[in-house]
Amino acid sequence: MKNDRFLRALARAPVDCTPVWIMRQAGRYLPEYRATRARAGDFLTLCKTPELACEVTLQPLRRFDLDAAILFSDILTIPDAMGLGLSVEEGVGPRLEKPLRSRADIENLAVPDPESDLGYVMEAVRLIRRELDDRVPLIGFAGSPWTLATYMVEGGSSKEFSLIKKIIYDEPETAHLLLSKLAAAVAAYLAAQVAAGAQALMIFDTWGGVLTSRDYENYSLGYMRKIVNALDRDLKEDRPPVILFTKGAGQWLEKIASAGCEAVGLDWTVDLDDARNRIGDRVALQGNMDPNVLYASQGRVRQEVARILKQFGSGRGHVFNLGHGIHPGIDPENVQVLVQAVHEMSIPFHD
Amino acid sequence: MKNDRFLRALARAPVDCTPVWIMRQAGRYLPEYRATRARAGDFLTLCKTPELACEVTLQPLRRFDLDAAILFSDILTIPDAMGLGLSVEEGVGPRLEKPLRSRADIENLAVPDPESDLGYVMEAVRLIRRELDDRVPLIGFAGSPWTLATYMVEGGSSKEFSLIKKIIYDEPETAHLLLSKLAAAVAAYLAAQVAAGAQALMIFDTWGGVLTSRDYENYSLGYMRKIVNALDRDLKEDRPPVILFTKGAGQWLEKIASAGCEAVGLDWTVDLDDARNRIGDRVALQGNMDPNVLYASQGRVRQEVARILKQFGSGRGHVFNLGHGIHPGIDPENVQVLVQAVHEMSIPFHD
Repeated sequence: MKNDRFLRALARAPVDCTPVWIMRQAGRYLPEYRATRARAGDFLTLCKTPELACEVTLQPLRRFDLDAAILFSDILTIPDAMGLGLSVEEGVGPRLEKPLRSRADIENLAVPDPESDLGYVMEAVRLIRRELDDRVPLIGFAGSPWTLATYMVEGGSSKEFSLIKKIIYDEPETAHLLLSKLAAAVAAYLAAQVAAGAQALMIFDTWGGVLTSRDYENYSLGYMRKIVNALDRDLKEDRPPVILFTKGAGQWLEKIASAGCEAVGLDWTVDLDDARNRIGDRVALQGNMDPNVLYASQGRVRQEVARILKQFGSGRGHVFNLGHGIHPGIDPENVQVLVQAVHEMSIPFHD
Repeated sequence: MKNDRFLRALARAPVDCTPVWIMRQAGRYLPEYRATRARAGDFLTLCKTPELACEVTLQPLRRFDLDAAILFSDILTIPDAMGLGLSVEEGVGPRLEKPLRSRADIENLAVPDPESDLGYVMEAVRLIRRELDDRVPLIGFAGSPWTLATYMVEGGSSKEFSLIKKIIYDEPETAHLLLSKLAAAVAAYLAAQVAAGAQALMIFDTWGGVLTSRDYENYSLGYMRKIVNALDRDLKEDRPPVILFTKGAGQWLEKIASAGCEAVGLDWTVDLDDARNRIGDRVALQGNMDPNVLYASQGRVRQEVARILKQFGSGRGHVFNLGHGIHPGIDPENVQVLVQAVHEMSIPFHD
């Protein structure tokens, strides 16, 4: 590996400077991404055509000195493979044509076979690894079972999550049946991504933060833990580092850090020094700049990078990132400034 | 006062059972509210017609054994009085016709005079107090300066808050100018509500939780503290108890409790026992049932009430409430079950 800073930071090994990548780095803020997407016709075709998914995965690496690539895909490929009929319209968000409406719908769900049902993802991973040629590591990913369940029951994005919450409050066993199937599906999907070449894994729990503390443990974190355990069992010493990221989980960082993962993703509401004090050196920390800072001036971006590096302080185990995906309206020039600032200004914090 | 449980709980005095009221208790889940609103024609007319605002304020008290009334109004009456042109469309949410687009727009803002510019609110407060005839106390309220600022800059509800955040990151002085004017406006507005008859006050900081920890202190909590201080100075011993509520502020409870208020409102992501351990007995706690529990069965509602009462445990200073406003789709029958369950099941927790 020519640049293994990212993997070293996840292992809390020494690095020359803090590694950085950006959630949704292959995305709409890049004109070349918009051009490829226009060529594909729509978002899902882009996801399902390995050559195009590979192309957009690599685009940000050509512009910026990023320390990791992340597979271009969508967390809803699994519900799609389970037969729920995914469509993604720009500005509207994802829609599932056949949301889960009954216990029978959930009983009838089959766990997809990653190679036969999601072969386009595995093919993209293989292609990206070939093209990357070990310049930087490739991150594979999936949505958390809870987050996938919210979309599968609500039929799309939600504000109040009333349908899925009615299930957890009134039919907890039905919720557990769905989440168990999703945990099995996600574990198999991530293991297949590793077999295809993914060198680190991230689980995105976008909606764990809408749960009560107890339900977060029961319905979200518990299933992420099961996935990590399944990967340990199935991949043994080949199990790559896993990053768990729940948005809005500032209250529960200690619990997440104890779930068997190598790193915890932090949104921007969390103070990095506070997080480090609470978690200690058990795991690495990834994050946590407010994506909105990238709307500000270059001077302000640098100032915020400095603040976050200082908050983490000296020592091992920090991967710089935003606290959430980059917004489509951001000027790529500011991403350039961010990446350069992280590399330059972090040197004094390392031996 | 015939029933002063709510005020006693805020003062951490002994009560016979735990008082309960419900955020947005005068709202669309009640058929009689929908009828009055239909009669008014639209939401804003309902707010601006004291007789109708009084009527809907009292409606939930006729059905349920609630321990407090809350003025029917909207947090955006202040931006409206500042000339931004409020409209509220059902299902779309609030819109401000003339959002703030420049430093000059902010410099030109005048702090409204509550009696002349927001007289319909003061008239509603006086009318409600007359009609309530001291059965239960009346809560007055306002939005926090930060929350008002987000609407005034974004022009309505927002997902990413990019415009207001660009201001705090690039022009912090401009943000402070706006927030200072809003703090003065809110303090005067709340003082006028007290003069008109409000017996407790609540400040709703719906969007403080989208800030970083440091910016929450600088741009949201700091201005709520200024308001409490202004009320102390202006009202002296007549200053009624103040409840501060920031959604998504589980990480910052200790800071909020130290802001000079008598009570902290808690959303449903917070564990009440954990909150009490962290805050101690400095202030009362209000909350914190997930509003979605009201979609579940009556048995499940009672179970959740029991869990929350047990989490708070014995002792003084708990006001039962939801962790956010009640949803329009809730069956009023379940509210009946909730209110009765709180009163009955809380008796063993009091002397």
